[in-house]
Amino acid sequence: MTHKLADLGPNAALIGIAGSRAQLATPCLVLDQQALARNIKTAADFCRDHRIALRPHGKSHKCGTIAALQIEAGAAGLCVATVGEAEAMARAGIRDLLITSTFTQPNKFLRAASLAAQGCRLFVVADDPDMVDQLDKAAAQAGVVIEVLVDVDLGRRRNGVVSAAQAVAVADRIAASGNLRFGGMQAYASHISHVPSYAERLRASRACADVIMDVRSALIAAGHNVQRVSGGSTGTLFMDPGLGCYTELQCGSYVFSDVEYGSLDLDEMNSSPFAAALFVKVSVIGRNVEGRVTCDGGNKHFSAKETLPAFRILPAEGAIYRPDSDEHGIIELPNGAPQPALGASFEMIVPHCDPTVNLYDHFHVVDGDKLIDIWPIEARGAF
Amino acid sequence: MTHKLADLGPNAALIGIAGSRAQLATPCLVLDQQALARNIKTAADFCRDHRIALRPHGKSHKCGTIAALQIEAGAAGLCVATVGEAEAMARAGIRDLLITSTFTQPNKFLRAASLAAQGCRLFVVADDPDMVDQLDKAAAQAGVVIEVLVDVDLGRRRNGVVSAAQAVAVADRIAASGNLRFGGMQAYASHISHVPSYAERLRASRACADVIMDVRSALIAAGHNVQRVSGGSTGTLFMDPGLGCYTELQCGSYVFSDVEYGSLDLDEMNSSPFAAALFVKVSVIGRNVEGRVTCDGGNKHFSAKETLPAFRILPAEGAIYRPDSDEHGIIELPNGAPQPALGASFEMIVPHCDPTVNLYDHFHVVDGDKLIDIWPIEARGAF
Repeated sequence: MTHKLADLGPNAALIGIAGSRAQLATPCLVLDQQALARNIKTAADFCRDHRIALRPHGKSHKCGTIAALQIEAGAAGLCVATVGEAEAMARAGIRDLLITSTFTQPNKFLRAASLAAQGCRLFVVADDPDMVDQLDKAAAQAGVVIEVLVDVDLGRRRNGVVSAAQAVAVADRIAASGNLRFGGMQAYASHISHVPSYAERLRASRACADVIMDVRSALIAAGHNVQRVSGGSTGTLFMDPGLGCYTELQCGSYVFSDVEYGSLDLDEMNSSPFAAALFVKVSVIGRNVEGRVTCDGGNKHFSAKETLPAFRILPAEGAIYRPDSDEHGIIELPNGAPQPALGASFEMIVPHCDPTVNLYDHFHVVDGDKLIDIWPIEARGAF
Repeated sequence: MTHKLADLGPNAALIGIAGSRAQLATPCLVLDQQALARNIKTAADFCRDHRIALRPHGKSHKCGTIAALQIEAGAAGLCVATVGEAEAMARAGIRDLLITSTFTQPNKFLRAASLAAQGCRLFVVADDPDMVDQLDKAAAQAGVVIEVLVDVDLGRRRNGVVSAAQAVAVADRIAASGNLRFGGMQAYASHISHVPSYAERLRASRACADVIMDVRSALIAAGHNVQRVSGGSTGTLFMDPGLGCYTELQCGSYVFSDVEYGSLDLDEMNSSPFAAALFVKVSVIGRNVEGRVTCDGGNKHFSAKETLPAFRILPAEGAIYRPDSDEHGIIELPNGAPQPALGASFEMIVPHCDPTVNLYDHFHVVDGDKLIDIWPIEARGAF
């Protein structure tokens, strides 16, 4: 995978040089290629073994190169959050895309239809009959047929239909349209993906599955063919196939893992099936206060303020890294620990991978101690 | 100001079209050109009237076009936070730059020296003798002389020397170097810019001024010529000239204002000298839950979680907008208020402008109801 050097930022000249991982200009995103490959294979193998499709969520990485690796490992296609992300993924060669958020502006309907007209296999979601009408009009204008899933709320009260009757009304409207095809359901339980206890997460997942099966029955009773039920997250990946309600899983964060998912018991065995693959690298830029040093990564370089970044390799037992202001972070040292040197650098496991990736333009891909490539985050900020 | 259409995102085709402000694809940044021009003029006039230099901080806007407007209005030069931002500003034609954060990596020293070699008038800051030595080496390698300010801590305990003796040690090292010139002091009181009470903010500013004058006296007593003292923020702009310790002010947020600065009494008259010029525009994408609607802007589109965005025009008295998840926000409506229509859009005053701007690639510049230009945020993410 090669890209134009000029677009790859101030670390481009380090690609392929021995020991270059240690020399990266900071703050930057570092991606461990081997951990990434293992994570992609683990999820793909698990889904293949359980005969459920995997449609990884591209909002986690926003990167065409990673999407291509997921497809190569067996993914059925990709999920994206926005029309702009779908456009970026299509430009990168990913041609089977589900846009998981609803959208409402004329410009967005036309752009989605235009992607379908360019040959993308495009799925969108809807939770409102008016949205269906507008999408139908745009599809007619572009001369395409778009497959639509009814988006079902599982209790988050954010998006989706909130009753089986509403689901049927939306499905009826899709079926009655001239240029849309009813494709099934999306049911994404965002609010339970981080429930700390495995048993409670399973209980909550089963309650969601009951809702899904009720809505599915109502849709079938109304004469609709529910071919596809798309949902699930990294937090429930290992329990979702057993629920018997999903045909495909939308997990995203598993490619990188992060502090929040790394602390969860994902498989009821606490076996940490996914390794931390993504790091923010920072450097020490100040040492004038005892018991701490100042680094060049702050709120602008980490997201998720409630969760602290974790060290890949601790400078001292008990050291804590805390984003302190927009541009600065503080490493607080335990009593008596020597200060790291000026210029010393540290890789921090990201607190929450999705919004952190969204802050950067590039992944610095490393294998051992070497920078082996730089991958653009093409869909960053695409709306 | 024109740019290549292809680089300007999905709203490029709307430039110059009547009523286009209402049609912008969301979520996007909207910049009111008239409010921006007034804010730039207000700060420039105030500093000119008080015979103090204004060196606006580019980390707030990261945009060469806005930097050029500030210079045109009389700014002495620009501040930037990183070497990468300095490079982006230099490419945009801004040639007088102060990098306000220390940096420590060999790559960064060489890049800074290279900017000076390209003809930029470059100021950097240092708070450590070792940093001075490394910068000197890079300047020698590039065959340039770089002006260095001693960075002074005013109580934040994040960056800067923490004593007058340390300040003298750093200044001595600069003076003894072969390729650096001692230029004075940087003293930025980040921790007091948002103190709610004007009287308390003034008291805190005076205490900082005492520290500055003590360090300045020690530097002069040691034989150093303190030509420049750079510091100050939007929160203290109207009191800083009266302190008698600064030669130039580093205010940044005044160009846009934001919810946090908008709520401060800046000039002891509560006269709101700076108007809200910057908005995140969002659209309604869901209406299935009574008493609220869901919009397409979330944590990925706003920063500063402690402060809520404010409506430019309220949909109903008492309505609140709250980022709810990475991609979604909720408008909570007062009892009995009708739901805004699907697709209705709202402009939200940003909670904290600097890190919010950092999430976007473009400003959508509007005059009244028309999109008149799109300005790239060239230094976004530059490290």
